[in-house]
This record gives sequence, C-alpha cells and structure tokens, in this order.
Amino acid sequence: MNKFWRGLAASGLALSVIAAGPAAIAKENGTAAGNGTSKNLIVLIGDGMGPAQVSAARYYQQYEKGIQKLNLDPYYVGQATTYADRGEDGGTIVSGIVTDSASAGTAFATGHKTYNAGISVSNEDVSKPFASVIEAAEIDGKSTGLVTTARITHATPAVYASHVRSRDNENAIASQYLDSGVDVLFGGGKSFFVTKEEKGKRTDKNLLPDFEAKGYKVVENAQSLKALTSKDAKVLGLFGNSHVNYVPDRTAETPNLAEMTSKALEILSADQDGFAIMIEGGRIDHAGHANDLPTMVQEALDFDAAFKVAIDFAKKNGNTSVVVTADHETGGLSLSRDNIYEVNIDLWDKQKHSSEYLINSLNEAKTMADIKKIVSDNTWITDLTDEEAQLILDGDGSSYKREGGYNAVISKRLLIGWSGHGHSAVDVGVWAYGPIAEKLKGQVDNTQVAIAGAEVLGLDLTKATDGLQSKHLYPKFKINRDKEVLYPAKALTEALGGTYQVNGNAAVLTGKGATLTVDLSAGTAKADGKAVSFTVNVDNETLYLPLSAFNQLSGKSLKWDTLSERIQLK
Amino acid sequence: MNKFWRGLAASGLALSVIAAGPAAIAKENGTAAGNGTSKNLIVLIGDGMGPAQVSAARYYQQYEKGIQKLNLDPYYVGQATTYADRGEDGGTIVSGIVTDSASAGTAFATGHKTYNAGISVSNEDVSKPFASVIEAAEIDGKSTGLVTTARITHATPAVYASHVRSRDNENAIASQYLDSGVDVLFGGGKSFFVTKEEKGKRTDKNLLPDFEAKGYKVVENAQSLKALTSKDAKVLGLFGNSHVNYVPDRTAETPNLAEMTSKALEILSADQDGFAIMIEGGRIDHAGHANDLPTMVQEALDFDAAFKVAIDFAKKNGNTSVVVTADHETGGLSLSRDNIYEVNIDLWDKQKHSSEYLINSLNEAKTMADIKKIVSDNTWITDLTDEEAQLILDGDGSSYKREGGYNAVISKRLLIGWSGHGHSAVDVGVWAYGPIAEKLKGQVDNTQVAIAGAEVLGLDLTKATDGLQSKHLYPKFKINRDKEVLYPAKALTEALGGTYQVNGNAAVLTGKGATLTVDLSAGTAKADGKAVSFTVNVDNETLYLPLSAFNQLSGKSLKWDTLSERIQLK
Repeated sequence: MNKFWRGLAASGLALSVIAAGPAAIAKENGTAAGNGTSKNLIVLIGDGMGPAQVSAARYYQQYEKGIQKLNLDPYYVGQATTYADRGEDGGTIVSGIVTDSASAGTAFATGHKTYNAGISVSNEDVSKPFASVIEAAEIDGKSTGLVTTARITHATPAVYASHVRSRDNENAIASQYLDSGVDVLFGGGKSFFVTKEEKGKRTDKNLLPDFEAKGYKVVENAQSLKALTSKDAKVLGLFGNSHVNYVPDRTAETPNLAEMTSKALEILSADQDGFAIMIEGGRIDHAGHANDLPTMVQEALDFDAAFKVAIDFAKKNGNTSVVVTADHETGGLSLSRDNIYEVNIDLWDKQKHSSEYLINSLNEAKTMADIKKIVSDNTWITDLTDEEAQLILDGDGSSYKREGGYNAVISKRLLIGWSGHGHSAVDVGVWAYGPIAEKLKGQVDNTQVAIAGAEVLGLDLTKATDGLQSKHLYPKFKINRDKEVLYPAKALTEALGGTYQVNGNAAVLTGKGATLTVDLSAGTAKADGKAVSFTVNVDNETLYLPLSAFNQLSGKSLKWDTLSERIQLK
Repeated sequence: MNKFWRGLAASGLALSVIAAGPAAIAKENGTAAGNGTSKNLIVLIGDGMGPAQVSAARYYQQYEKGIQKLNLDPYYVGQATTYADRGEDGGTIVSGIVTDSASAGTAFATGHKTYNAGISVSNEDVSKPFASVIEAAEIDGKSTGLVTTARITHATPAVYASHVRSRDNENAIASQYLDSGVDVLFGGGKSFFVTKEEKGKRTDKNLLPDFEAKGYKVVENAQSLKALTSKDAKVLGLFGNSHVNYVPDRTAETPNLAEMTSKALEILSADQDGFAIMIEGGRIDHAGHANDLPTMVQEALDFDAAFKVAIDFAKKNGNTSVVVTADHETGGLSLSRDNIYEVNIDLWDKQKHSSEYLINSLNEAKTMADIKKIVSDNTWITDLTDEEAQLILDGDGSSYKREGGYNAVISKRLLIGWSGHGHSAVDVGVWAYGPIAEKLKGQVDNTQVAIAGAEVLGLDLTKATDGLQSKHLYPKFKINRDKEVLYPAKALTEALGGTYQVNGNAAVLTGKGATLTVDLSAGTAKADGKAVSFTVNVDNETLYLPLSAFNQLSGKSLKWDTLSERIQLK
C-alpha cells in the first residue's frame, strides 16, 4: 500500500470497504472455507490460452513426460465468455466479439467491458477510469504485485494498475506504475523505463531512479531475483528490454515464471494485511500469434508450473483464493488439420528455438539452400522440400512474413492448424481454488472474475472507481497544426457535468463556470456573452475546443497530462 | 426391457446390479439430491459440438434473438478429454489423439476407449464387446431410447445398442437394434432397414416387418410422431432415408430434435422402472465437416432446444439425471480469421439453405454466372467476385469439392475459420443436472460419462459386459478366393482361452478341444496328431485359419455371423 492510497483512504474517499469477517480457513479442497472470504488473492492469466492450447499442453505433457494431468486440471470450475465492447478506437482497431488483451483484461481486472485497446477505461469519447482489484486492494492496505513474462507495461498487467485510452502508450503505463503503489513488478519491458539513449523508448527521463527513490529495488536477472528476500518489500524486476525470452530461448540470466511467482509470493506474503497479485503467462499469446506451436506449448507449461507454485502456496497458507483464466484464445488453434485423425505429437519437441529466435537468420537468407540449413539446424526436418523452402522465402502473406511461412511449414508437419495470426472468440477456461471457486463455477462472463475477486477480499470496486473518476478523464483528442490539443466538445462538456445543445448554427455549452456559445459557421465563441479567443474547430460535424474553453466552462483548473493523455480534474 | 435381456438376467448372468436406494428427490439445483442416484438418465450428445461451436451458437442467439444464454449454459460443470485409443483399422483409418464418433461414443457409452471406427468393441485383433449404459439399463428392466438427427444407425446411437468392428456396417447395426430391446428408436437412416429394391442398402431383407412383429410401431413423419401416445411403448421412427434434413432444409414432414425428444420422454417415462435415453444432435458434426457455419449454428440451437425439453422434464420429474457432452470438435472451427477482431455475425442468418442442399445445383453449374446465381439465390451475396466463383467451380481440393469451395467463400465473408474437414482434439464441454452432476465436475475424461451414468442408475457395466463377452467375439478376418473366412490364429486362439506358440516352422495351438499343430512352411495341420484338411494361410508372417479349426481347437460349436462380422460363442 502506498502513501497516495493511504491518503485517499484517510480522506474518507475510499474508506467504506466491506468489513471482512475473520480470516477464512480453507479446507483441503479449498472451496468450502468459512465465510467465503480470503486474505490473499492470486490471479493467474494465461494470455491467449484458449481451450485448444490447454488440450495441446496436456497431450504434450502426457506424451513427453508420462504425466497425465496439468497442475491446473484438478481446479477446473467453468468457462468464461470474453467478448469485447463493440466499438473502434481511432478507426484502426475494430472491436467486436473478438477481444484483445486490453479489453479482456479490463473486464477481469475491473468488472467492466470496454473496447479493444482500452486499458481500464470506459468505452466513450471521453472515457472514465475503472478501478481494478489490485487498486482496490491497495486502498485496503494490502500488498500488491504484477508478474508477467511479457513486458510489464503490456496490456494484461497494465489493466491492473494504470489507465490509458491506448495500450500502445506503454511509457505512460510505466510512469503510472510509479504512483500505483504496486509493490512487486516483475516482467520484461525495460525499454519503457529508460531513455532512447539507453536503448529505451522514452524521451522524457529514466524512470529507474524514481522507482529507487520510492524504495523499489531494481533487479534485472535471475540471480538478483533469487537473492531478494521478504525484506525487499518493493521490487521492480525487469528481465528483458522487451518481453522475457521464450522458454526455448532462455539463458541462465532469465528467470522462469515459476521463479518469479515464488519470489513475489515470498515478498508479498510478509504483509500481515494480505496481498493481491496477478501473474501472467504472457507469451502463450505471442507464440500463438506467430503460430509457433512448440513454443506455445512450452509457454503454457511454464505457466502451469507457475500455477503449481501458487496453488502450493495457497494450500499451505490456508487463507488464499486462486483464480486462473485466459483473456482469449490466440491463433485459432486446431489440434488437427487436413482431415487426418492424429497430431504428430512426437515432433512437438523437435524444435530447438522459437521461430522468433530465427527471424534475423530467416530474413538474411538468400536461397532455398539457406532456408533448408536454418530449418535443419533448428528442427528435425532434414528433407525440407523446395516448395516448403519457397513458402518460407516468400513469407505467409501476413505481417509475420518469413516467420509466418516457417511456422506454416512446421504446423503442417505437426498436423495442427491455425485460422490466422489474431485472436478468436471461443470461451476460455476458468480454474479456481479457495472461497473464490464457488463464485466462478459454470458458465460465466470474464467480468465475474473481477467481481468474485473483490468479493473474496472484501473490496469495494465501485468506491475505488469513484475515487479514480474524481481525478481523471481520458478523452479522445486531436492535435492541430499549432500543436494545440483539442477535445470533442459535446462529449467532454457532458463528462464534466454540463449540457450541450445545438440551435441552428450555434452550440450552447453550459457548465458551472460559464455558458459558452459557439458560432459553428464563423468559428467564433463567447463566454457568458463576451467574445473569447480560444480555437474553435469543427471537424466532420463535431465541435472541438481546447482545454482553456473547458476551464472557463467548468470553472475548474483542468490540466492536460500529455504523457498519459488524460485530463486531471484536480 | 426385452425378453432376451430378461432371459439373461433370469439366468443369473447379469443379476448383480448394484442395489439402488430409494428414489432420489432432486432439488431445484439438481445437484444435491438424496443418495446420489436417479431413476432415469438422459444423455444428450452434441456431435461435433466443440467449444467454438457452443460459443458461436450463443453469440448468434444473443445477436439474433437478444437471448443471452443458451439453455445449456446454467448447467455447465466441466470439460472432457476425448482422445481415441491409438491404432488402425484395416490400415485405412488412423486413430490417435483425434477421435471419431465411434471411438468417443464407445468411451462415453461404455467407459472404455477404443480405436476410431470401433462400435463398442475393444481395440484388439479379436475385439471383445463392451456393454453400454443403455444395455445395462435394459438388463435392469428400464425402458430405453435412442434419438438422433443423424441416421439411427450412425456411430453415436450405434455405440449404445450394437457392437461391430466398423461403424460402416450400418446394416448390421440396424439388425442388432432388433434384438437390443431398445424401446424407442428415432432418427434417419431408413435405407439400412429396407432393401435395395426399396431404395435401401440391404440385400438380405426388409427389417421393418421384423420390428413390427416385435411390437414396434413404425412412423416416418412429424405428424405420425405427434400422434404417438405413451401406450405406443415400442416405436421405430425413421425420418429420412439417410440423415434427418438440416434445420434450414426441413419441411413440415420433418420433426425437429425437440419434438422427437418430447415424444420419446413421454413414451419412456410411462415405465415405472425408469428409463435411460441418449439424444443426439447428430448434424452439428455434419455441418462442421462441410464447414457450413450457418447450418452448424442452426443445428446447435436445435440441439439446445432439445436440451430444454429434457431439462424441463427432469426438473418436473424430480428423479432424473441429465448429462450433455460432445464426442469431439469438428472442423477446427475458429471464431475469427485473418487477424480481424470481429466476426460478421449479422450475416450468419443470411443463408436460406444448407450447403448440402446446393450440392446438385453446384455440380450442374457450368459457368461463373451459374455459380453467381446459385449463391445470390441462397445468400445475401450479390457481388460474388470472379475469384470467388472460380474457387467454387474448382472446389476446395477436398472431397467436399464445390460444396467445400462454396463454404470456403461463405466462411471468409463471415470472418470465421476452419482447419479442415475433419475432427480436432480439443476438450469438449460437459453439462449436467441431478445427481450425475457431482460426478462430472471439473476436468474429466469422456469415459467418466458412462461410469457416472451407470452409478446414478445403479447399473453394473462390468457384469453387463461379461454377459456380452460370453456370447460374441469380433475378430479381424479376411476372405480368401474360395470365399472362405479366415481368422488370425494367435489372436483368436488366445481370445478363446487357448495358447499359441511357435517352435521353428511349427505353430502349436492348444485349446480345450484339441491341440493343433500347423506346419507353417508346408501349410498343413494336425489335430491331436491327426492330419486335418482345413485351410492354412500364412500372410505377412501371420497365420490365418478358418472357423472349423477353432471349433476343433475349442471343442465348441462356433458360428460366424456374416452380417455383424462376429463369432457366436454359443
């Protein structure tokens, strides 16, 4: 729990947390504990881990290791719908039944649907933030953590402790983490914490000294992670410039997800107030996007091993709920293809490195012979045909190019199919242990994961959301040639509590500070009858105005947070 | 219950049925009833209804009718693995992780895995029969039924009341039904009950008089079905020469699955001893094989409507367990494709007829213009491109030819993907109500469906299987130029309880009737030292002998059932 939240709580804004009864004592089956509450909550997300991904991992493990069940299997309780809120963002990302990680994450972190790309904000022209279970746990004085094999600034962790209109704004997500109070942050994504001069993506500053000033220890490899103790209450672990390397590409420097999970639980469980943590197997999804089945399976098993750490902790601890789900399926994976009733599972471990690892060498290849050498060096295939080599040289016609071609060849040999490089809308599994399990049985929607998590911890998501919404709005905006930021006038006026009416050529905006009258034809405006000089822009029948207009309208001193692209309300 | 089974039971062979306690009284949630037993069992199978098929049906219903949940949804309890037993049959059907309906059906009907194509027989050179829950219920004196929209002789119903090495032997399956004692048989497949002269597939005889002689009323359309009453205790309903028409192609003559279900329950529930029934949505699978999404969705909703009839009955009855699952996924369906985050669900109801309905006209088309007219007559597509028309003319390269091409075009426009025309190995959903629900929660294997069904009815599957195995063996065999049937000697000797040893060039077969010594080089044989004249055939290092040899060996009077391709042991 950080000082900011303590202040909020002390101010009474977020105090009315539902009183939790005495700590529940979970029985061995974990589902019939006391009063239905838990002190601790562990959420595990298998990104892109749809039904076929789970089946594939289980069958592989059975074949390869003779182990019949995944660690997850005994805890299966139901399945969840994952659909996104309909809409578009910037005209580029179509958002429908098929969700992305941002929209799905917003749903299972906050209990609200939104559009694809939205990070815990509403689906509106002027979006409002939604509080996550992690943020509400912070308010409640619990320790919190986010752990992932993706960039720590990627959508799934981001939805738990930041708010932006676009998931691509990872610099803002990193900066918001600094104020989030989240105690343990493990993942990749160092580039969004350091400047371009330092091989990063930031133009403003290196954030690491700021984290250290707030008491975070910064670690960057498996050895440093291992050396942490429960006394290191705040830690930022960055195990890669971008995502953490795939399982088959890791070196001794790279921790696996189970190691990150184990250390995070060791640190967070030292808090007597309890904790809430989200642990993501972030790259099941990436391997699915690339259509790299062997790597996808390894990532799913890496996630299942992390689950074992979590469930072992929960059983020993006796006061912990665990829930596992996926945000969506990735790749349209099918365990079969071409009307053949077998998959060549004996070949699934015959690839040395991920397809991602081969990208440079594939791109440098000039001839079919070059391709054949790359493939035979990395796989069991010593008889690549000219046709297969040519497909790889040509690429698969997607943005994955030669990597896509390579995986198309491998997948055909493995007898598995993909419908493309994107997500699909099939329901995903839900696994649970402890009091939360009763709340997630059967057919549910992914929003129920957030609601159930808040319930078992005794958190009030609505109050936490009210606190956030009193501070920030996340408007659509545009920047004109003078580099002035303009906002959609009707949507922002209404979001600020005012009214917006159009009478012929005039728009009348009424707020607590002033009434603005805008001549839509002339492009001029008056405030309470007096001419004002702010920019008036009508674009595609929508009126846009700068922040100065809304300051007059509302009588407030609104500020624009350029990095997080949000309006500070106070 | 038929006389045959009564006789078996009276003989003591199958008497030791587990004593069931007083009838359980199901509570509203249906999962906490009394002593964990039910008088009645309803099994519903959505053939080919994998996770994506269920999601698709739900999303379509939400969009089209504004109904948020499928009738199935509140009863989701877990998911089941579906893998087949590894093996081959006749070298043609490869059997692996990806199951067919025969292997999956054998698993959830009898509790035993087998090879693809096997109808409730073991995966051996000389297969043994496994008893189904329906057969065990017959022994226990319950009424029984099989209902499907596929041919009644198709794999899923067949596994419950017949035993053959190959699912393709549908004439034998029809004949075995006559002796099965199953009281209600509703589906398509009339052609396997009548002779070639009567547009059927049989060369031996028309079976319908035999059914009538056993007390079955035969009905062939929706009106006759509706007119049945609970006094019609035995009914054979044949609503199509092959499968029952797809939902979009039905006429008033064709009952839907809910109507068949309703009438079957009305009839069977008149038995005071209780009943067991299997109801199959058989053509979700067929539409999946064809890659015809709009029809697949309609078939899934037809199945869901039948489930509503079943669950309403069970709730009212208070002593009925209901379980629903699928045998496997079909088509490798993906709800998305080509990296687009939406499916064009508004187009899913814009096809008038199934693709199957168009086959003849597609085959007769000569030009792209012909194709364009067929497509615009049947769908919303008035702008079929030349490229699309050519794809349809060329076919999709599979056995579905032009129908496959047509569905490839439609699927791309609907933004959904398929990995082929076969099945896939993803786990399938399990839904349940009543005492059986507790036995099927979480991650299970499909064999558990049979075991749980037998448990709630208090049936002894092992005893029922022993009864069957005392009567028949199902050997691999071959027929030589003299039309003599030959059997693999080692496998059949051992299946008959004898021993088989090879000493140099001699095979020594020992049984209760005689010891056979076969000179494998000379192709001669002796029985207890005396020369015998039966055929000796060595093929690919395997010795084959005719039934007369095994009669001598065993001292029994074995008979070959040519139709069912099985040996009668007594």
